[in-house]
Amino acid sequence: MSFEVTKELIEQVESLIQQQDDTAIVSLLDDEHFADIAEILEDLNLDQATYIIKLLDSDKTSDILMELDEDDREKILKNLSAKEIAEELEELDTDDAADMIAELPEERQENVISQIEDEEHKADIKELLTYDEDSAGGLMAKELVKVNENWTVLKCVREMRAQAENVTRVHSIYVVDDNDILKGRLSLKDLLVTSTKSPISEIYIPKVDSVNVHDEAEDVARIMQKYDLEAIPVVDNQQHLLGRITIDDIVDVIKEEAEKDYQLAAGLTQDVEADDTIWQHTKARLPWLFLGLIGGIGAAAIMGDFEEMINKHAILFFFTPLIAAMAGNVGVQSSAIIVQGLANDDLKGSIGNRLLKEFSLSIVNGFILAVLLFFFTWFWQNELLTSAALSISLFVVIIIAGIIGTFIPLFLDKRGIDPAIATGPFITTSNDIFGILIYFMIAKTILGI
Amino acid sequence: MSFEVTKELIEQVESLIQQQDDTAIVSLLDDEHFADIAEILEDLNLDQATYIIKLLDSDKTSDILMELDEDDREKILKNLSAKEIAEELEELDTDDAADMIAELPEERQENVISQIEDEEHKADIKELLTYDEDSAGGLMAKELVKVNENWTVLKCVREMRAQAENVTRVHSIYVVDDNDILKGRLSLKDLLVTSTKSPISEIYIPKVDSVNVHDEAEDVARIMQKYDLEAIPVVDNQQHLLGRITIDDIVDVIKEEAEKDYQLAAGLTQDVEADDTIWQHTKARLPWLFLGLIGGIGAAAIMGDFEEMINKHAILFFFTPLIAAMAGNVGVQSSAIIVQGLANDDLKGSIGNRLLKEFSLSIVNGFILAVLLFFFTWFWQNELLTSAALSISLFVVIIIAGIIGTFIPLFLDKRGIDPAIATGPFITTSNDIFGILIYFMIAKTILGI
Repeated sequence: MSFEVTKELIEQVESLIQQQDDTAIVSLLDDEHFADIAEILEDLNLDQATYIIKLLDSDKTSDILMELDEDDREKILKNLSAKEIAEELEELDTDDAADMIAELPEERQENVISQIEDEEHKADIKELLTYDEDSAGGLMAKELVKVNENWTVLKCVREMRAQAENVTRVHSIYVVDDNDILKGRLSLKDLLVTSTKSPISEIYIPKVDSVNVHDEAEDVARIMQKYDLEAIPVVDNQQHLLGRITIDDIVDVIKEEAEKDYQLAAGLTQDVEADDTIWQHTKARLPWLFLGLIGGIGAAAIMGDFEEMINKHAILFFFTPLIAAMAGNVGVQSSAIIVQGLANDDLKGSIGNRLLKEFSLSIVNGFILAVLLFFFTWFWQNELLTSAALSISLFVVIIIAGIIGTFIPLFLDKRGIDPAIATGPFITTSNDIFGILIYFMIAKTILGI
Repeated sequence: MSFEVTKELIEQVESLIQQQDDTAIVSLLDDEHFADIAEILEDLNLDQATYIIKLLDSDKTSDILMELDEDDREKILKNLSAKEIAEELEELDTDDAADMIAELPEERQENVISQIEDEEHKADIKELLTYDEDSAGGLMAKELVKVNENWTVLKCVREMRAQAENVTRVHSIYVVDDNDILKGRLSLKDLLVTSTKSPISEIYIPKVDSVNVHDEAEDVARIMQKYDLEAIPVVDNQQHLLGRITIDDIVDVIKEEAEKDYQLAAGLTQDVEADDTIWQHTKARLPWLFLGLIGGIGAAAIMGDFEEMINKHAILFFFTPLIAAMAGNVGVQSSAIIVQGLANDDLKGSIGNRLLKEFSLSIVNGFILAVLLFFFTWFWQNELLTSAALSISLFVVIIIAGIIGTFIPLFLDKRGIDPAIATGPFITTSNDIFGILIYFMIAKTILGI
């Protein structure tokens, strides 16, 4: 089961589009999975991709569109009429439909929505658009299978057949009372093994996990992972059943979270991909580089203040990149550990304990590295005091860098700020400056200048 | 639905253990979810945690154990007899059971397996232990629901009731022939809406995605994400149905991959957590810091070679940390983009195109930053040539750092080496050295020394 987009296949599709041989295109792509067709589209130009989208059935193209990169989808949708977009939306689950509409320019949204024919679908999508996209409401779909607690299994199965038509995957059957208040759940398995005459109220499981529609997406992801859930119902403050969230949406949340942290650690404002434009890359990268520039100028200014040492102890200036790099590396290591611990919600103990641990760890690492540096510089220059100044500075700088790297993300987190911004360029730049300042101050004291 | 481990709860549990009030403990914890009890156990000491595990029923404790950190689980299992561990294993799905056994010291494994009473369960676990843990075989469970293509729906439902007992979640029903060759699938939904007399062969969906038992875990994750699958059957080379992989295992694979890349970017050998011992942290961090030390010494040696410039142009030496930091930051930015693109499998175009793009981008960023640096240093020192040397060097260094950062992960990936090791300390250290060397060479040329 491996599908690969070959150059030959792309050329074949291109030439069929050229010849406008619609029958051949349909028969070529008909058996392919929508995710595979999406891959093919990514290798075509915009006109060709639009041609294919207009040609194929919307039950297939709606899925293809959702599979594409947001940028590519946006471009193709620009080429479709409001009516054509509405047809795609009719085929999508409400959560995907709402996501697609939210990406349209505001002036088009109303227009497209008004073209949706299925009134219930339209109302559901409109409701979903009112929720914050990073909340449970923004993740949920309206499609679900629900049964009334007063029904029998037989009536339940009959009703479900109708409902299940619209639901791609039935994870759980939710049980509600006459006021649509969530009471519990049933599994398909339970239905299979129960007599058809039993009333639902006797067989449903009254304990059901749910989330509030205004809960944050990240928290929903954490709960579903922790309790190993494949779907979770979403309720309002009065426990009315509003929708459900499935694990595949959570996989996306997890991936986005991880990518965001990774990009921040690498000095990229989130949401940039290899294939974005140079302008988007510049916007994502330049602010962090500018921060680094300011830091470097700060470091240069500090060294300027110690200029009088340069004649007798030039070697001190040779080691500033080493001190700066070590301060930066240690800072990133400790902050990354904290950021990851916070993300996984598995940091135990107080801030004090955490700092104490980092302190002990830095003493071990700092001591080993300082001793190595001491012997190396001693053999190189044979100046005992200079070597001592260098290695003692390295030792102190490593300890302070570790403590800063541990403290800042914890502090930001307490303040409700994303601790991930404390990794990467932010921590390396501030540690560069601190490191070099401490270094020269210690060297000045030891060498008695 | 939010559970929180409070200090009071922990104290209550501790005091009940102290008093050995088993009835009270059982009634206190009986209604809690296993994931919540696992959280409580993490706040107890080893003896207390072991006490609880021995006290509660193994259908609950087996799930609690699987929910714990590997380190904590290992310690508790050390306190259990082979018989007690075997009882936990009986309750677990085969994939979890095999994972738990694989963590035991080798000399215990045989002993524990021999104590498992259910012969089929034992054989299944033994089979799973033969697969590589990073392969489809290492991820799959033997529990699944399968039906013969020659059965009727009625027989199918009857057989399934028996099988479903052992399967936590029924995603798909797999259809096999008399030789256990995978032929297709059925959904529970299909069974609900079909007449009980139809033969399975008439209603099953013959198109079913599957993976080979020796496929890599990462590839399985990619396929399941791409095709939005919640479960996938695993077959051998002859298409015999061997097991199935569910999406919750894939969530773990995705998280582990992301964490590994993140940790490598931060200069941590993978698999270290905030609560590991100082010794584990030293092992994870020291090698990368040592690399940084070597790099710093290299940079110092380069500067030593240009020592004659120090009297007339001390300012050049003040800016080495800036040059090194910028080279490092740019390198990390470009390599992170590539590593992420490779991980998501969405890098299009040739290496040449990619390098060209990075080159153009570096020209934009480099130019802006170089101009800023030029004016700053000109106002500060009023030496036109020095400022020119500095800013031209920064420009060139940014371009080269970007190209190195792009090339190295692509090169490593082509060679079959994990490109993620090219982010973090590796790229910053090598870029520090290159950057400073280029910087002094350019400065020397321009200033004509």
